[in-house]
Amino acid sequence: MDFEEKVISNQNLYDGAILKLDLETVSLPDGRQAKREIVRHQGAVGIIAITPANKIVLIRQWRAPLGQVTLEIPAGKIEPGETPSQTAVRELNEETRFQAEKLELLTEFYTSPGFADEKMYLYHAVNLQAVADKLAQDDDEFLQLEELTLAEVQAQIAAGTICDAKTLMAIMIWQAMQ
Amino acid sequence: MDFEEKVISNQNLYDGAILKLDLETVSLPDGRQAKREIVRHQGAVGIIAITPANKIVLIRQWRAPLGQVTLEIPAGKIEPGETPSQTAVRELNEETRFQAEKLELLTEFYTSPGFADEKMYLYHAVNLQAVADKLAQDDDEFLQLEELTLAEVQAQIAAGTICDAKTLMAIMIWQAMQ
Repeated sequence: MDFEEKVISNQNLYDGAILKLDLETVSLPDGRQAKREIVRHQGAVGIIAITPANKIVLIRQWRAPLGQVTLEIPAGKIEPGETPSQTAVRELNEETRFQAEKLELLTEFYTSPGFADEKMYLYHAVNLQAVADKLAQDDDEFLQLEELTLAEVQAQIAAGTICDAKTLMAIMIWQAMQ
Repeated sequence: MDFEEKVISNQNLYDGAILKLDLETVSLPDGRQAKREIVRHQGAVGIIAITPANKIVLIRQWRAPLGQVTLEIPAGKIEPGETPSQTAVRELNEETRFQAEKLELLTEFYTSPGFADEKMYLYHAVNLQAVADKLAQDDDEFLQLEELTLAEVQAQIAAGTICDAKTLMAIMIWQAMQ
């Protein structure tokens, strides 16, 4: 069975600060045409950072799309010219003031392949320590660092504050590490 | 610390078939203003369906945003007026021709809270059986049903064909069920 859709034309509907929106016209395997709404995103990293006291480092922040505060693992967009592992080093420093002896890539995945090309790289920060040189922080980010035990994490999942895919996946991986 | 951003105004940039794009102007906790690009989506369900032979039911399909074929758990958008569990029953029937004795909600999560409000409800289809009444299928979906062992799943993850968050999370949950 042939699955491939061939792109006939593409209309860029929006080109913004963090995403682009394209409307593609594609040719289906049976020759008919269809429209595809596609969000383009530069990709992001997430970091599983566990302290020596066996707590997970999370960031409390407002999420405008959800209209609520969340607790998520440290994460951020890949900037032009960066490799994902460089992004991970930078975001860990900016958001948490920690650095790692090594950043291990655990898994990578598309967050929502039905409408977006965003790819997420999930790292494990091995042997956390305080950073020597602090990078400047984004000036429109209001962030609060928190360190939670596994029991506290379970309570925050139940409360709906921990509620995103990468963080839930990180916690499943952390549980398997215990 | 106050995190809340208050919405001052909203400009709808696009209103499409599967998503909307909004550009919000918000007031930050310190009083400054910022723009937020937000993709609105009606939400979706994903279904962990394990056959009596202990294979996971996956769907092979083309994903336009990625420009590749993927293998994903059965999934689909929540239609207006549907509850997530009704969507799960419908999608399981349409995409796999299976039904379940019971659909258990295992977890729910936002797929990409930095720019999208899409919420995913992940169900476990308990006691799979062939459907009696087949629902009509979407006419622009080219899908192929496959049933994989855990070893075959690992090979498809390594090959990059299994590559999305909900399916990787489903496989982690399936592994924990073994």
